[in-house]
Amino acid sequence: MKHTISVLVENRFGVLARVAGLFSSRGYNIQSLSVGETEDATVSRMTIVVDGDESILEQINKQLNKLIDVIKIVDLTKERCIERELILVMVSANSKTRSEIMEIVNVFRAKVVDISHNSLTIEVSGSTEKVEALLDLVRPFGIKEMVRTGKVVLKRSSKKR
Amino acid sequence: MKHTISVLVENRFGVLARVAGLFSSRGYNIQSLSVGETEDATVSRMTIVVDGDESILEQINKQLNKLIDVIKIVDLTKERCIERELILVMVSANSKTRSEIMEIVNVFRAKVVDISHNSLTIEVSGSTEKVEALLDLVRPFGIKEMVRTGKVVLKRSSKKR
Repeated sequence: MKHTISVLVENRFGVLARVAGLFSSRGYNIQSLSVGETEDATVSRMTIVVDGDESILEQINKQLNKLIDVIKIVDLTKERCIERELILVMVSANSKTRSEIMEIVNVFRAKVVDISHNSLTIEVSGSTEKVEALLDLVRPFGIKEMVRTGKVVLKRSSKKR
Repeated sequence: MKHTISVLVENRFGVLARVAGLFSSRGYNIQSLSVGETEDATVSRMTIVVDGDESILEQINKQLNKLIDVIKIVDLTKERCIERELILVMVSANSKTRSEIMEIVNVFRAKVVDISHNSLTIEVSGSTEKVEALLDLVRPFGIKEMVRTGKVVLKRSSKKR
């Protein structure tokens, strides 16, 4: 099962290596990870997506809690959340295919951020599903290069409707 | 000086811990990091932003190259690039301040992705400068929570104009 975990850590040397090391030493592969500063520059927030067994994850949680640099851990897997990721993808394009690709970009409310004689670079952000759906549609044209942020997640403040 | 490095790695256990460990063992703090899969599911791309001395970074580059899981390293610091990051930020808002915050959101072409009686959650993507500028403007209202992806970077294919 996929788990999304948010970890607040002190922004110090080696924290990332220690946290990542805890997962890998248990045979847990990190599927995506984002680390960035928070409003407090001494504190960073990691969003980690892992795929694996719940009981092992509990052990990892306990060990994470023992790390002196870890401030707070939240398992967001079962929470109501806003999930986003961002992708930059460079797609092969020529004078014949360009308009077709542009139509896909418009439907997804994505943006063309760079253009050349033989390529278009597209920026798209949204849920993993949305981003994957756009990738599926542009794949036949040929993906030259792409980079994606890890997923970031924030708990919803609004009540259930 | 700030450096942005893109590292293509085999998607295996422990790669992230090894790469992060290399930086921290040299006293290099990673300011932001994003890891995500590429088009080839066996390969991940890390985008790492670090702040530090050029000569030490050269040493790290050499050591990274020796890691068996590292496929390719590109220092993007001096390249012409497209840089993006994404932030979700929950801002305090009430019936009096809401419209003022919405104006800021519109100017930045950001999106409101969640709303409650006392908060608005905003999604914004763009260059670090753009994202920081929006944060500066909403800060006075009170930031309740925020999460940001690391920066992702893709080389421009277009020629200089």
